[in-house]
Amino acid sequence: MLAKPDAKGVYVIAPTPFHDDGRVDDASTDRMTDFFIQCGVIGITVLGQMGEAPKMEHQEALALASRVIRRASVPVIVGVSSAGFAGMRTLSRAVLDAGAAAVMIAPPPSLKTDDQIVTYYRQASEAIGEDVPFVVQDYPLTFSVVMAPSVIRRIVMENPSCIMLKHEDWPGLEKISTLRSYEREGSMRHISVFCGNGGIFLDFEVERGADGAMTGYCFPDMLVDLVRHAAAGQHDAAHDLFDAHLPLIRYEQQPGIGLAVRKYVLMSRGILASDTQRRPAGLLSKAAREEVNYLLRRLARHDDRARLKSLQDVH
Amino acid sequence: MLAKPDAKGVYVIAPTPFHDDGRVDDASTDRMTDFFIQCGVIGITVLGQMGEAPKMEHQEALALASRVIRRASVPVIVGVSSAGFAGMRTLSRAVLDAGAAAVMIAPPPSLKTDDQIVTYYRQASEAIGEDVPFVVQDYPLTFSVVMAPSVIRRIVMENPSCIMLKHEDWPGLEKISTLRSYEREGSMRHISVFCGNGGIFLDFEVERGADGAMTGYCFPDMLVDLVRHAAAGQHDAAHDLFDAHLPLIRYEQQPGIGLAVRKYVLMSRGILASDTQRRPAGLLSKAAREEVNYLLRRLARHDDRARLKSLQDVH
Amino acid sequence: MLAKPDAKGVYVIAPTPFHDDGRVDDASTDRMTDFFIQCGVIGITVLGQMGEAPKMEHQEALALASRVIRRASVPVIVGVSSAGFAGMRTLSRAVLDAGAAAVMIAPPPSLKTDDQIVTYYRQASEAIGEDVPFVVQDYPLTFSVVMAPSVIRRIVMENPSCIMLKHEDWPGLEKISTLRSYEREGSMRHISVFCGNGGIFLDFEVERGADGAMTGYCFPDMLVDLVRHAAAGQHDAAHDLFDAHLPLIRYEQQPGIGLAVRKYVLMSRGILASDTQRRPAGLLSKAAREEVNYLLRRLARHDDRARLKSLQDVH
Amino acid sequence: MLAKPDAKGVYVIAPTPFHDDGRVDDASTDRMTDFFIQCGVIGITVLGQMGEAPKMEHQEALALASRVIRRASVPVIVGVSSAGFAGMRTLSRAVLDAGAAAVMIAPPPSLKTDDQIVTYYRQASEAIGEDVPFVVQDYPLTFSVVMAPSVIRRIVMENPSCIMLKHEDWPGLEKISTLRSYEREGSMRHISVFCGNGGIFLDFEVERGADGAMTGYCFPDMLVDLVRHAAAGQHDAAHDLFDAHLPLIRYEQQPGIGLAVRKYVLMSRGILASDTQRRPAGLLSKAAREEVNYLLRRLARHDDRARLKSLQDVH
Repeated sequence: MLAKPDAKGVYVIAPTPFHDDGRVDDASTDRMTDFFIQCGVIGITVLGQMGEAPKMEHQEALALASRVIRRASVPVIVGVSSAGFAGMRTLSRAVLDAGAAAVMIAPPPSLKTDDQIVTYYRQASEAIGEDVPFVVQDYPLTFSVVMAPSVIRRIVMENPSCIMLKHEDWPGLEKISTLRSYEREGSMRHISVFCGNGGIFLDFEVERGADGAMTGYCFPDMLVDLVRHAAAGQHDAAHDLFDAHLPLIRYEQQPGIGLAVRKYVLMSRGILASDTQRRPAGLLSKAAREEVNYLLRRLARHDDRARLKSLQDVH
Repeated sequence: MLAKPDAKGVYVIAPTPFHDDGRVDDASTDRMTDFFIQCGVIGITVLGQMGEAPKMEHQEALALASRVIRRASVPVIVGVSSAGFAGMRTLSRAVLDAGAAAVMIAPPPSLKTDDQIVTYYRQASEAIGEDVPFVVQDYPLTFSVVMAPSVIRRIVMENPSCIMLKHEDWPGLEKISTLRSYEREGSMRHISVFCGNGGIFLDFEVERGADGAMTGYCFPDMLVDLVRHAAAGQHDAAHDLFDAHLPLIRYEQQPGIGLAVRKYVLMSRGILASDTQRRPAGLLSKAAREEVNYLLRRLARHDDRARLKSLQDVH
Repeated sequence: MLAKPDAKGVYVIAPTPFHDDGRVDDASTDRMTDFFIQCGVIGITVLGQMGEAPKMEHQEALALASRVIRRASVPVIVGVSSAGFAGMRTLSRAVLDAGAAAVMIAPPPSLKTDDQIVTYYRQASEAIGEDVPFVVQDYPLTFSVVMAPSVIRRIVMENPSCIMLKHEDWPGLEKISTLRSYEREGSMRHISVFCGNGGIFLDFEVERGADGAMTGYCFPDMLVDLVRHAAAGQHDAAHDLFDAHLPLIRYEQQPGIGLAVRKYVLMSRGILASDTQRRPAGLLSKAAREEVNYLLRRLARHDDRARLKSLQDVH
Repeated sequence: MLAKPDAKGVYVIAPTPFHDDGRVDDASTDRMTDFFIQCGVIGITVLGQMGEAPKMEHQEALALASRVIRRASVPVIVGVSSAGFAGMRTLSRAVLDAGAAAVMIAPPPSLKTDDQIVTYYRQASEAIGEDVPFVVQDYPLTFSVVMAPSVIRRIVMENPSCIMLKHEDWPGLEKISTLRSYEREGSMRHISVFCGNGGIFLDFEVERGADGAMTGYCFPDMLVDLVRHAAAGQHDAAHDLFDAHLPLIRYEQQPGIGLAVRKYVLMSRGILASDTQRRPAGLLSKAAREEVNYLLRRLARHDDRARLKSLQDVH
């Protein structure tokens, strides 16, 4: 099932569930996959930055991706960013064979000039095969590579297999508007734009023309509702829902410990059996866990989904 | 009036008001100074990053600082970060003569190792005079210099004139807890910790032991109330107030255009005559201005201070 | 055969030989291995930065390392730097099983503070097994991680299995002197120090206390002679030899195209069948190849080893 | 006297002479200026990176530039790079009034995309005045800004007052060839290209089409001879001369301590009264000074200019 460029909704970024001892947790993986489908996501992305891909061995990564692909009834996109094209090709071919809908490629930090970025994506597409749909991940805060809108346009126009932008430039609202204006004026073909950055600007991103979110915020069900409100033109309702979650979104978006927050909440919601990360990992202190619990209790006043039994026991 | 290490409250980061043609606007400077005092701030910081200091000539910078110092009834801290110690010393001496309470020093991006950072502050203190109180600005996202808590302790213990940390590490809550634990265990003397980062973690920062905020969020009056609630142990009230402002705090905190948002709101509130910045500057598109207006209208439901006449006219 | 901490001489950094079509070239690998032994190197390092490790798949990398280990009569060190500890452990165990003498680990660019660097090597050693000898690669220009001498001392003292420093800080002469002074004063146990950076400071590095070179300059036979001269106290002879090669060393040390120069000369010397690199790769223009040929002809006036038949045919 | 775009030769980068106590040394400044003229340079550049500009106050910088301009019989270019356009304009106007031939502008590290770089130079030219000739400094290793040749072309074509490139990209030979090919094909007007980087590739840079050197290597007289040989087609003679100096050029080119080497040798040659730098400064250890002395003694075998009385006294 290939990724659909016209879809609107949420691609959820899946964390990789581990047992306390660091082994991949298959039961949690299945439970998480089912949960995402129940949330109403239109797709799942595995092995992204927040999927701890660099901490997994090739066989583990492939097995995780295959397991999610087999179980999910929606397209699955697989992160294949790699220090070299050889590893990128191997993993791409393997996950495509396993049924992936597309692959996602982040730029290496060594890229500086516009031409270097464009050339990189040209060579990457040749390496994985020009028939393989790919997503450009635009995340300057992490990758130190800044892509001007005109560079994204060049990538899109040179590579017919580029189907989607994972947008997490920061600030980035104007970039969405510019890309959509390129489409309107006819200088760029249409691609999907799904936004990351933990969702912290999703309220306005969907108003600027984004098709939805591609992020792993610990309430993907909320993200689905928000995009649905926005698509229905219910802007105030979208903002009301968003604002209730913003204190937690903001807390989860901290570099270094964001994944720890995400896994902790997913564990608290009964989806993951453990919030273990592989090393190196940012961990939550006791104070930080209490802060997350406090935010969840406050959120529960507005959103039933945050009424967690386990949290009512805290304090 | 020297900065008090035991004070709790808000040091507001002052923008530099310009006329539409780029000249410094004295009338707005005075109005802004008075407004800050009315808000209940315990101090004002001028010529920081958000004060467009690098875009001002020496004489202009000195005149601006002197004007605010003369008019304000609270301590004024002046940013003196400079590419070399000669310029830092000149400006420090001049503003101290004019009545500044302290100076603030950010680390140059070339600093990498712990020792390099410690040595830099030692030499800076010698350059400006060991009797001159100074604030360490810890802002890795902008300056690319990461200071471990143990490095801050070394700076504090080697330099009796180091009186305050402007804390804007990100994530940074654990750093506050660690520094306060150093004090409790007796390995570091007490210094003030005031938090920046646009206030986006202020709700928890004050709970972790920060003395308040040093930031320029466009509602400093809210920051004052929040710190007051926190000091009184009214945590839920503090969070309620904070959460109402968070959508705008989040919007204002965007690198590149944050100052544009701040000046636009201060203009909308009748404090600045113009939201002009000197170049290079990030500007607000029409869409962005409408987004800010929308956030202000939503905020006005919770906080009377956001009921701006000018905004009611929009749309 | 384990790496010997007391040895003096040259660990040559081996490039990975490819056929024109990008497959690994076994015949050239064998010929190159034999050539290095004939040159008198005391060890070989494979899969370093200049070994195009990130461009190879796991199985290829392991096969290359195993082939060189089987054929060489000297210790072989294998680069195992990896974005995560899982891949690092897998490759380390595999190459140790195949007979490697030690592994080499470079720091990830995300490390900033002294403590972060020390913690990383502690966790890396735990991950690969505390019985596995490892080399610290200190190469700030490429990895953006600056290790103060005191940090290297902490790594050495916390990890008994740390046996060697690959030194390529720049400038770095004082660092060698400082580390050796730590040993003399008894605050650090002895480790080997082998210098990289293409050899461009090797003349003085050996005088400062380095044990030799670990670099892949295209005349490893010269490096062996230089270290031998230095060990014998023949400093002028060492400098005479070095100075004759410096124009080419300098040319080869250019980031981005240095490996292209190295492979081109090794091909010209009859050791590699092809100078092919895998993409992304810096390539030599026609003008650059002519410049290298010119440098080789000039070098041949001083060093018979540069009298290449193939080059006499050029022009 | 304006900078001539058709000149070939050497623009020497002047260090700023200080007394031992850190005051600017006027007598040494005059002696140095006269020495440079005697060397045969076609121009002098003051207040560059190696001129310790950021460590000087505005009035000092202006006085130094004016003094050199008054005394020199050749064009003087003044570095005016600044964190903001206000300071850049002020200094530019002042030195132009004092008789400077042109100003030199380096890009701030915040620039990332092609468009950002081009826009910066457009705004800088507007700020200083579109009639003021300026030099683009292209030095990625220090400024972290990478300018593709096509970006330089855009800057040249958008700004008639851009007269020269100070080229110190690394590696950079292909960039010179590409820029000259732009001129030949008619897509870019002619500008001067003078090369920096301490001269470490000057032997080939002049063969690729550079007009000469703009660097402060401690033997500018050698640089003048080298460019003269190259202009006369005496390539072997140029390389012979260059190779004799390369060990010292290489030693002087070390970041952090390069200026210390340069000032030490200029002091040894009797030109500067002191090799003092203002802080922060990289200093030469005793071992490093001995290494420089050794290199000078070896150089003296080939070049009479290195037969320094003071050095014969060492050892």
